[in-house]
Amino acid sequence: MYRTHNCGELRLKHQGQKVTLSGWVQRKRDKGGMIWIDLRDRYGVTQLAFDESKTDKNILDTVEKCGREYVLKATGNVIERYSKNDNMPTGDIEIFPDALEILSASKTPPFTIENESDGSDELRMKYRYLDIRRNPVKNALVLRHNIARETRKYLDKNGFLEIETPNLIKSTPEGARDFVVPSRMHPGTFYALPQSPQTFKQLLMLGGIDKYFQLVKCYRDEDLRADRQPEFSQIDCEMSFVDKDDIMKQFEGLVQHLFKTVKNVDIELPFKRLTWHESMEKYGIDKPDLRFDMTISELTHLAQNKGFKVFDSVEYVGGICAEKCASYSRKQLDELTKFVQQPQVGAKGLVYVKYNEDGSFKSSVDKFFTPEDLKSWADAMHATPGDLLLILAGNKQETLDQLSVLRLEMGNRLNLRDPGKFEPLWVVDFPLLEWDDETNRYYAMHHPFTSAKAEDTKFMDIDPGKVRANAYDMVINGVELGGGSIRIHNTDEQQHMFKLLGFTEEEARAQFGFLLDAFQYGVPPHGGIAFGFDRICALFGGSDSIRDYIAFPKNNAGRDIMIDAPATISEKQLKELKLKLDVNR
Amino acid sequence: MYRTHNCGELRLKHQGQKVTLSGWVQRKRDKGGMIWIDLRDRYGVTQLAFDESKTDKNILDTVEKCGREYVLKATGNVIERYSKNDNMPTGDIEIFPDALEILSASKTPPFTIENESDGSDELRMKYRYLDIRRNPVKNALVLRHNIARETRKYLDKNGFLEIETPNLIKSTPEGARDFVVPSRMHPGTFYALPQSPQTFKQLLMLGGIDKYFQLVKCYRDEDLRADRQPEFSQIDCEMSFVDKDDIMKQFEGLVQHLFKTVKNVDIELPFKRLTWHESMEKYGIDKPDLRFDMTISELTHLAQNKGFKVFDSVEYVGGICAEKCASYSRKQLDELTKFVQQPQVGAKGLVYVKYNEDGSFKSSVDKFFTPEDLKSWADAMHATPGDLLLILAGNKQETLDQLSVLRLEMGNRLNLRDPGKFEPLWVVDFPLLEWDDETNRYYAMHHPFTSAKAEDTKFMDIDPGKVRANAYDMVINGVELGGGSIRIHNTDEQQHMFKLLGFTEEEARAQFGFLLDAFQYGVPPHGGIAFGFDRICALFGGSDSIRDYIAFPKNNAGRDIMIDAPATISEKQLKELKLKLDVNR
Repeated sequence: MYRTHNCGELRLKHQGQKVTLSGWVQRKRDKGGMIWIDLRDRYGVTQLAFDESKTDKNILDTVEKCGREYVLKATGNVIERYSKNDNMPTGDIEIFPDALEILSASKTPPFTIENESDGSDELRMKYRYLDIRRNPVKNALVLRHNIARETRKYLDKNGFLEIETPNLIKSTPEGARDFVVPSRMHPGTFYALPQSPQTFKQLLMLGGIDKYFQLVKCYRDEDLRADRQPEFSQIDCEMSFVDKDDIMKQFEGLVQHLFKTVKNVDIELPFKRLTWHESMEKYGIDKPDLRFDMTISELTHLAQNKGFKVFDSVEYVGGICAEKCASYSRKQLDELTKFVQQPQVGAKGLVYVKYNEDGSFKSSVDKFFTPEDLKSWADAMHATPGDLLLILAGNKQETLDQLSVLRLEMGNRLNLRDPGKFEPLWVVDFPLLEWDDETNRYYAMHHPFTSAKAEDTKFMDIDPGKVRANAYDMVINGVELGGGSIRIHNTDEQQHMFKLLGFTEEEARAQFGFLLDAFQYGVPPHGGIAFGFDRICALFGGSDSIRDYIAFPKNNAGRDIMIDAPATISEKQLKELKLKLDVNR
Repeated sequence: MYRTHNCGELRLKHQGQKVTLSGWVQRKRDKGGMIWIDLRDRYGVTQLAFDESKTDKNILDTVEKCGREYVLKATGNVIERYSKNDNMPTGDIEIFPDALEILSASKTPPFTIENESDGSDELRMKYRYLDIRRNPVKNALVLRHNIARETRKYLDKNGFLEIETPNLIKSTPEGARDFVVPSRMHPGTFYALPQSPQTFKQLLMLGGIDKYFQLVKCYRDEDLRADRQPEFSQIDCEMSFVDKDDIMKQFEGLVQHLFKTVKNVDIELPFKRLTWHESMEKYGIDKPDLRFDMTISELTHLAQNKGFKVFDSVEYVGGICAEKCASYSRKQLDELTKFVQQPQVGAKGLVYVKYNEDGSFKSSVDKFFTPEDLKSWADAMHATPGDLLLILAGNKQETLDQLSVLRLEMGNRLNLRDPGKFEPLWVVDFPLLEWDDETNRYYAMHHPFTSAKAEDTKFMDIDPGKVRANAYDMVINGVELGGGSIRIHNTDEQQHMFKLLGFTEEEARAQFGFLLDAFQYGVPPHGGIAFGFDRICALFGGSDSIRDYIAFPKNNAGRDIMIDAPATISEKQLKELKLKLDVNR
């Protein structure tokens, strides 16, 4: 038997008991006469004590050999400690081993196995199994387990069935790029890994499964950006005989349940709702962080035709009001200017207006505007004396983007983005379609199965860009956690949509023929939502990076540097697949 | 709002309530003056009633249009039925709709949506979404959901963490064939889809996660046999600081929990145990059906050297005793002879001995053996008057195989394989290695990470075939539900194993270098088990076919005939992957 207890559970009440523990050597201290070993497992750390004058020679020899990360099995009595350690749950006791066995030796690990490690990201990824021994990584995996468990508990209680959909499916050119899997049994053909179970969950609705969910791996062969993973996990859900409000109610309930059970945080229902249009105008983005206000105000009409060419020549002037920041120094304002001028933000410059405590104004555009002009801006922005107005100008959408980034930066600077505060909302009424100038066609903003709002279908042929979708995104603290829509459930409408997206009838048939066929046999009205499970974990864990919440993540180049994948395969394998490599293609 | 209730919940107590239901038209009956529609959803069927003399004309027009599988929304009062139907839970009531809407029309479905459908397998697979509307398929998916839920509940309660391991990993030539995924970002290299998360779960043990599980998709590119799927699901588990008995106890507990909570069947603990050797000798197979006895007895020494050449020339003579079958007719015995002579069984012939009620013997070999000889066989087989002895001879392993098949056939004929009875056992002490004559090398019987029994390591170099493994299979009713082992947790031992399996040091490094490296840093003793989740579902559902328990299965050629996958991909996709098809390779 390797253990009677784990390394986190012994307390004073166990005093006098003979116990066996197994675990890793966290550290060893030798203070002349006494040696201590901190033994660690998943559950905690327990101190082993060895008295050089009393402990058996063989045991002392074994202790001598042990280094960090050796795996030991120790048997001995639980003793009350002379000097207790209030910082650890087992700090009242220690074990005096009368038997000690090295279960496995260890080389010195390449980085310290401590809460704050000295290992670089790259090194910790290569030795991820050692990284997982560290509390922050282990705790992230425990958190993920708990969120998954509570997700399933809530959905099961609400009548949802978890149903596995296939992972070897068919490639469709719409959307992101598919990973493909060559078929050996059917040479020249390929499976594709799913980007989402979208069509399968719709087919389940057709099959009468009125409440479906699945925690499911999805795959996208995208050029990776920071914090994108080629494989990621979704909480994928779909319901029949529901409208938009039914779905939003069901899933804000899920998120409330998760916050309560996993973090003991109370979230109020119902969530706030913003239309996409409002969100863009007030926050410059479709996933606003509502932990602070500082909304965007348009100043175009107030700011133009006063002789300031920068403003007069643009489509849009707008700004945000940073409360109590009129006292910002030259240096602070220069920093902000540099911030918005970074290539990834892209503003040409920043106009500031200090609304001083005494009611006077000081701005970077005093030459062009009277105090009355500036007062009119301050009023439009609901500013009061002591506030600082930060103004950008340019093409409308770009300027809103920039103001959105500046707003978050000011939120950070002013500590308005409290990590312990959670402000969820729904963003609704997204445009159904987005025009792309490059390819000269419309793209589905969510996906080609999203239905149009009934009152907007009249624009479908005359002004498709104006049509709003029965779509909704759930956003918390500036993070888009999930999104979904009420689907089209009618063949004609679905075919019309494919046509708008530039599919010929043949292409639509070839790719989605099975769905169009299925629509012939009685379709229930249905809709759903999919949450980024990795992202929910990161939000709950208080991290920006989903990678911390994945046991074995890929790096930013899509590589698993621990197992060294992807890798070459044998010529025999290629031959069986009837494939030839041609890296010069 | 589409519904106030579902189609399975209304009872007499709802009488007088105004309700709204949505669902599919199961059937429509017109009896002159009255029309009834059975409306169906996931939860049941409710009868809608229309009185041609009272119901609104518009509603009757709508009813007129409806055919099978139309989707309707009906609102009306709950009425007590005049003639009740005890066969359906809602049979006491019906609805008199005062509003009726067709939500979606339907063509006549290609097969009947009834418990017993007229659709062929092929047709039902092509229209799987319609097949799922049928109760048997829907119930199979509900069963699967319940088994998954209870698996997670038990393992979570026992301290296991569910951790997702990656699906884009590296190809290894050991074991079955991998599906591979070409990498676009790293041209010329490939990911592989996992055949199991074996190495990753071992790395989690190294990471200190002492109890891991995962319900996980696995992939094998095998030439498909009936009831093999290229993607299948496993309950994958691993534990640290445990021995074989700890693991068997933990997981017989899981199976007991599943039987109790999902089927309300009590299973006794601990499970029986048979060594692999006993199992092979007594049942001719490593997954015996213990619902009935009829064990195999060896008769070689009793049967040889009596002048019967067929027996004298072979390695092994053995038989089974079919109780109370001495009265079998010529025809029945001929059937059994033909049965064992089928190519898939492969016996040359069948010897029978009738041990008549009066104590006399009648056999097909009376010419060669005296009644005393036959009595000695009967005694060896613990036969009593009235029994029938069925005897085969030949090469030992082949004959045991054949006897095993004959035993199951007799079990079927004698109704000894009660589908309501469950007889679990562990088969232990498997051989570590199997010799393959064709490739002239050893193969790991489980996998290359399985450890040898301590007392057998002495044979490791002198007679590797004799070494038994710390391995165990769980078998119920002749079905192998799962298997596992205590793993090697030592670099030298692991390297030795790779060598026995014919890996050069370079090959071992190239494929499992990360694991050998990991073993340098303190490995806990560990072991685990993996269950075939699809198979558990089939066993619980009382079916032989796992396909019935998979929402969207592939056919025996690995094709999804509903979505038509695998399929060709575009030249652009191939080019991005730097691949060329060459079907003549």
